[in-house]
Amino acid sequence: MNVTLNGKTRHYRTVAFDSARNSVLLIEQRLLPHEFKIIGTRNFRETAAAITDMVVRGAGAIGATAAYGLAQGARAFRGKDMEKFSQHVQTVYQTLAAARPTAVDPVNAMNDVRRAMSAGATVAVQQELALTAAGAFADDDARHCAEIGRHGAGLIRDGMNVLTHCNAGWLAFVDVGSATAPMYAAQQEGRKFHVFCDETRPRSQGATLTAWELAQQKIPHRIIADNAAGHLMQRGAIDLVIVGSDRVLGRTGEVANKIGTYTKAVLAARHKIPFYVAIPFSTIDWNLRNGFDIPIEDRDEGEVLGAWGVTASGQRAYVRVANPASGARNPGFDVTPPELITGIITPAGVFKPRELWRRRRELGFGGNR
Amino acid sequence: MNVTLNGKTRHYRTVAFDSARNSVLLIEQRLLPHEFKIIGTRNFRETAAAITDMVVRGAGAIGATAAYGLAQGARAFRGKDMEKFSQHVQTVYQTLAAARPTAVDPVNAMNDVRRAMSAGATVAVQQELALTAAGAFADDDARHCAEIGRHGAGLIRDGMNVLTHCNAGWLAFVDVGSATAPMYAAQQEGRKFHVFCDETRPRSQGATLTAWELAQQKIPHRIIADNAAGHLMQRGAIDLVIVGSDRVLGRTGEVANKIGTYTKAVLAARHKIPFYVAIPFSTIDWNLRNGFDIPIEDRDEGEVLGAWGVTASGQRAYVRVANPASGARNPGFDVTPPELITGIITPAGVFKPRELWRRRRELGFGGNR
Repeated sequence: MNVTLNGKTRHYRTVAFDSARNSVLLIEQRLLPHEFKIIGTRNFRETAAAITDMVVRGAGAIGATAAYGLAQGARAFRGKDMEKFSQHVQTVYQTLAAARPTAVDPVNAMNDVRRAMSAGATVAVQQELALTAAGAFADDDARHCAEIGRHGAGLIRDGMNVLTHCNAGWLAFVDVGSATAPMYAAQQEGRKFHVFCDETRPRSQGATLTAWELAQQKIPHRIIADNAAGHLMQRGAIDLVIVGSDRVLGRTGEVANKIGTYTKAVLAARHKIPFYVAIPFSTIDWNLRNGFDIPIEDRDEGEVLGAWGVTASGQRAYVRVANPASGARNPGFDVTPPELITGIITPAGVFKPRELWRRRRELGFGGNR
Repeated sequence: MNVTLNGKTRHYRTVAFDSARNSVLLIEQRLLPHEFKIIGTRNFRETAAAITDMVVRGAGAIGATAAYGLAQGARAFRGKDMEKFSQHVQTVYQTLAAARPTAVDPVNAMNDVRRAMSAGATVAVQQELALTAAGAFADDDARHCAEIGRHGAGLIRDGMNVLTHCNAGWLAFVDVGSATAPMYAAQQEGRKFHVFCDETRPRSQGATLTAWELAQQKIPHRIIADNAAGHLMQRGAIDLVIVGSDRVLGRTGEVANKIGTYTKAVLAARHKIPFYVAIPFSTIDWNLRNGFDIPIEDRDEGEVLGAWGVTASGQRAYVRVANPASGARNPGFDVTPPELITGIITPAGVFKPRELWRRRRELGFGGNR
């Protein structure tokens, strides 16, 4: 999407690749909204660490990062021995897959890349095919998000108040975003609406990333504490909820997403407010049969015990908020059951969560999209 | 409750009065958990500001603060003219009542004080009666909280995980607390349990005050993001919820409390987890007939846009977390309907929310307790 910095507007992708330097280029999201900076990873381990450490986060963005990371790792291999190369690629794959266990996009993206590589007879050809496939995943992600916008835009009507949780904007993908795609499309169609951004503790991606994105695109919005949506729904101040997802089970319609998503779905159901989940194909997991089997990261307790921000003097700083003698529990994600979800907005249309399996061919099951 | 500082343990009340200096003594709660300090207000306007600015917060604590503040204001009057005195007392009353409009304890407490004053024929006598009545309110509050503990302790069984929201501990009352009273009583009865403290954004009273209290009393606990309880309930990790309240409608059983309480009640109902509200008599409003008529403060957006804490170098600091170009909406309280509440724990026993009106005589309706 376009970013305006010091009066100059330029188009950026969240994830890109510098083939000359064999480096994955990432917007350093932990510095946003206070600083806009692009970093380059030097090797696949740095790329995996960038995912784990949340330099880059979000379903499609870490999918593209893992795809490029796999190509990066493959391209760093020196020699012609296919067996050693194959072992090396397996190490790269496992390292990147372990970087964010709740998400399925990295695995789906890397499977695409490996499938493409398998057509090559030599190390050099496979290395080239890997990079081409990673680039194709990134392009697909951007195109799929635009399609999500096309299918979802009609859900947003003039004067609506839309709630979103965490960041499923373009920073979470290669471009456009999933949950934000219908917003950007509705804006282009000339409709006026207002967005409530859940702060999304403990990492505050709603207050930092989503609010920054919406401000850049001039969409009216306000940030609320994660505690406030229930009250606002009770008072009729929220008309629609759109969130993203880290993994949607194609067999059951269960949705894993940032911690707190399930709570918003429960509240929306009570208040009969439509609750939509926007995802590209790569977020669908066609294998798992039970949402309870989705691994939920228990993240560092420091995230809950304090907050990152900038001081009055402009210094980036972490402050400890909580009682120094107390600890925290920090599950990073939760799982929302299909009965709480009005629809899944995909690049192929809007479906009921339990329809996904029946529609699996058009939704990319087996890579046939 | 007892506080251990630098190895020395001493008993403190949250609110007290220095009659020689005509000063309300308050624990400066905005400095906790990082610093324990007691401040004295110089006049009733400073006392009202201490409520508005959250130096002191919590149902019983601001009730006692307002009662002492009314006595403080009355005692500051010079002269013998009863009419002028009465006008002055009315100004004091209104100033203190406006300091936290969502709460009913200050009004109930000040009504007690005014009722007691009305027996005095002179300014001097009324001034003395005011202070005696304020002291009686504070003593009653502490005794009522202990009674809440006696009635609620049996709800907490060995091995339970108890969730609480915000701070309804002794810092929110004169002593003991309401939601924490059953915990302290169960601990004294020898039972082992664990408490999850909701962080309670935007002011983080759970992470700061409740966690500090529980650590002081050596009750095992962990802080969670406000987003996490839904997931933990879904996974069976929470057995019981106990919260406090700023105002319970005696006629309907509706409960106003810190923003986010309603959300936890909705989640608890979905998961069939008992949800209790612990209150002294002074938190019951016998007049209002509709929870939608409870005034909900829209507080400063800076609370949502950043956080207070201490830096690595030990400096207390506010950091701006959110996107600098974005605003916030910050409702401070919400209202939970009676059908989501398992029981109201009072000093007179545990009742269904809709039973309150029928039980009104034993619950202090008309001040007859």
